[in-house]
Amino acid sequence: MTRQASIIGGGVIGGGWAARFLLMGWNVRVFDPDPEAERKIGEVIANARRSLPGLSDVALPAEGRLSFHATISEAVEGSEWIQESVPERLDLKHKVFQTLQTHCDPSAIIGSSTSGFKPSELQQGAARPEQIVVTHPFNPVYLLPLIELVPSPANPPMLVERAKEVLTGIGCHPLQVRKEIDAHIADRFLEAVWREALWLIKDGIATTEEIDDAIRFGFGLRWAQMGLFETYRVAGGEAGMRHFIAQFGPCLSWPWTKLMDVPELTEDLIDAIAGQSDAQSGAYSIRELERIRDNNLVGILRGLKARDWGAGRLLNQQDRRVDALPATLDAVADLTRPVLTVERAVPLDWTDYNGHMNEARYLQAFGDATDKFMALVGCDAAYIADPEGGSYFTAETHIRHLDEGNAGDRIRVETQLLMGAGKKMQLFHRMWSGDRLLATAEHMMIHVSLKTRKASEPDARVAAPLARVAAAHAALPRPEGAGAAVGVR
Amino acid sequence: MTRQASIIGGGVIGGGWAARFLLMGWNVRVFDPDPEAERKIGEVIANARRSLPGLSDVALPAEGRLSFHATISEAVEGSEWIQESVPERLDLKHKVFQTLQTHCDPSAIIGSSTSGFKPSELQQGAARPEQIVVTHPFNPVYLLPLIELVPSPANPPMLVERAKEVLTGIGCHPLQVRKEIDAHIADRFLEAVWREALWLIKDGIATTEEIDDAIRFGFGLRWAQMGLFETYRVAGGEAGMRHFIAQFGPCLSWPWTKLMDVPELTEDLIDAIAGQSDAQSGAYSIRELERIRDNNLVGILRGLKARDWGAGRLLNQQDRRVDALPATLDAVADLTRPVLTVERAVPLDWTDYNGHMNEARYLQAFGDATDKFMALVGCDAAYIADPEGGSYFTAETHIRHLDEGNAGDRIRVETQLLMGAGKKMQLFHRMWSGDRLLATAEHMMIHVSLKTRKASEPDARVAAPLARVAAAHAALPRPEGAGAAVGVR
Repeated sequence: MTRQASIIGGGVIGGGWAARFLLMGWNVRVFDPDPEAERKIGEVIANARRSLPGLSDVALPAEGRLSFHATISEAVEGSEWIQESVPERLDLKHKVFQTLQTHCDPSAIIGSSTSGFKPSELQQGAARPEQIVVTHPFNPVYLLPLIELVPSPANPPMLVERAKEVLTGIGCHPLQVRKEIDAHIADRFLEAVWREALWLIKDGIATTEEIDDAIRFGFGLRWAQMGLFETYRVAGGEAGMRHFIAQFGPCLSWPWTKLMDVPELTEDLIDAIAGQSDAQSGAYSIRELERIRDNNLVGILRGLKARDWGAGRLLNQQDRRVDALPATLDAVADLTRPVLTVERAVPLDWTDYNGHMNEARYLQAFGDATDKFMALVGCDAAYIADPEGGSYFTAETHIRHLDEGNAGDRIRVETQLLMGAGKKMQLFHRMWSGDRLLATAEHMMIHVSLKTRKASEPDARVAAPLARVAAAHAALPRPEGAGAAVGVR
Repeated sequence: MTRQASIIGGGVIGGGWAARFLLMGWNVRVFDPDPEAERKIGEVIANARRSLPGLSDVALPAEGRLSFHATISEAVEGSEWIQESVPERLDLKHKVFQTLQTHCDPSAIIGSSTSGFKPSELQQGAARPEQIVVTHPFNPVYLLPLIELVPSPANPPMLVERAKEVLTGIGCHPLQVRKEIDAHIADRFLEAVWREALWLIKDGIATTEEIDDAIRFGFGLRWAQMGLFETYRVAGGEAGMRHFIAQFGPCLSWPWTKLMDVPELTEDLIDAIAGQSDAQSGAYSIRELERIRDNNLVGILRGLKARDWGAGRLLNQQDRRVDALPATLDAVADLTRPVLTVERAVPLDWTDYNGHMNEARYLQAFGDATDKFMALVGCDAAYIADPEGGSYFTAETHIRHLDEGNAGDRIRVETQLLMGAGKKMQLFHRMWSGDRLLATAEHMMIHVSLKTRKASEPDARVAAPLARVAAAHAALPRPEGAGAAVGVR
């Protein structure tokens, strides 16, 4: 049965939550009294649709159903997760929780997006305090995986575990905070940096653009993949963390920062910041900046994914959970048909400025299809790692481009075995988007011993399943375009 | 004439500077009294060699010559840039500058890697204070482009401009700090975050790993591409920066951070941090972590490069400066030979865990070769953007893999025009690494009107130069492997 979440309070944060649930197949019910809510949430979801599905290298489940509701009572009916993202006023949040709890399922989880309040503060006066927990996201919610999950002693461990399961399921990284504390963890850092930045501007040391450059050309690049401590561990070298602290420690008492004091937000200071920000970023609208940001984040996240590290490792874990393709030959429904070897959305980083899929990325998808077919016939990671095993190397490839693929298109590759015997395996892939045939690829693969790096015959672990597919595919008609040379019909 | 830099003080920072200069073609002379200096700097340069050249999509100049010297006087002889990276003790730095200035060229620039001292402090008692300026880098110096360039009033504007030119030339982003200040800009932020992190650990709120995750799964991803202010500008939405500050401003006086106070670095606290860091990262040696970090940074930087944004835009600007391939057909030395269309190093993000170049990346390099050839025959960005122009689309590709390419290999692609007439253009690329032929690619390209997206004949801007190459290449022998179908000899 389709799972259901409720979003109380839309805007950028509520909309981002809605997008995550929706694109992971949940039905989403929204309550937001803002008459513009539907448009605003729609814009956030549109951004998410162009960037999120392609982060995955497998097909996400079919999108859930989005509905808007006039009352909280209607919006929360039947939901197992209720996400509150109303403005940061404790009295308002208390009022919303009171109404919520009158109508929602007592076993539902009520997550609050609060960036500042402790869960025990939110729970004050609640009918069922144990049901309310802090789940603090980061903008853009549909791309950044961090959720600070902050329970109070009133929350039973079982609820915390269920919350982790749901958050992990929609692609997030739930970071459980051990003790509740004002502003949790990340915003304490952001606050410290923000305060220092205000001083730098006020004192005329740097403009908003110079501060941004000091971050994104330097430690910002480090922090996208390792945090503070792992970065310093590396910087400290073989001497280790203890040595690093001993070296860096004394600086703490140097007069480096003005953090002991809070700069007053005068009109002059606000004017300076707003003016500098216009000079820095005013050439782009907010909508353009959002897309630029999302394009960049997708590139960064997929770069980390290729290295199976940090936020990229998280994406790979999610792929393994949601992958619906058959894992074994026995699980393939009809072996007399070409085998479905890739099903996915075209990610932003595979496309040019106009959203067209780049030439090389067709081959990347075909290469993934080849890898999947190899795994199905037993040439999997274990066989490749086995000194007595081997792998198939591509000797030749022939690609025909028949139609255009674009960012966000759902594509699939179907693979026909033309020949599989001895050292050779000849594959013919067709790439489809709906009923449009985008491209075909014919590959000649040679089995290679990884010990000698010379051509060799696969052993029975591969030869037998391959022969089984060869027999099943023998009756398939020879594909149009197979065996052709470039420029020859 | 080859330019020359001197590195005074090796280690991780000095070694990183050495690597940047060296890989951009400068000769580098090193002085470091540490008997291990040659090994240590060699390790940093080895890391740089595997990660930096491939960041560029064109070939970097030939590496300069690295030499080690027993005295400062010998090390600085004839250098136009002298980089000081000795330990952070003002008396030591003063002593080094005194010796330096006795022997170096008075017109040389002396950059200091100091993270804390102001240039006016460094200049105290110097023979030529105007020659000394702060150029503060970030680890790993060979990958992170930020250099905080901090002059004092004693530095003439001309010297500051020359320093910018040199730093830009070796791929850095010189950020000139308007007023000298302790710890410049970035380290003030790092200090603020470090202090807050110590409190979180001391109070048992989070471990080193949890703090790192709070950064790298959240705002760290944002900061790799936009900084603090541009990120908040987007988050603030259409209401703008002024609205955002008004909303966020009041939080400044909330009791969110403990930054007014400095935690004491007791043995207990140091034990806690060192132990947590071991639990988090101890599975990897520092050497492994360095390579993981560099792999990740290359992926992030190249992701940003594909989007021409931030640190990635900087890399593209550098490519345009160092690109040595002919920009026009008239600049091609011998048109009767296949045309050199790609020359570059294989970047880390094109390779698998074993350092082998991925299948699809061969086609990416061939696609780049096609783009370059198109530009040479007049089908350049201007022609493609012109409503009366058009572009060539790939209809068919035939790739033969003959040998393996690996991370860091210098590769080049030579392009032969098999046919160029009417709507068609048939290309044959050969990819070489030294004298090894790695792969060939044959492409059938069709000229397409971008208005109708239908096949069309190119206009004279393209047809004429194309005919010129066709005539020149007509006498070339037909390449072995051209016109072949998959599996057919």
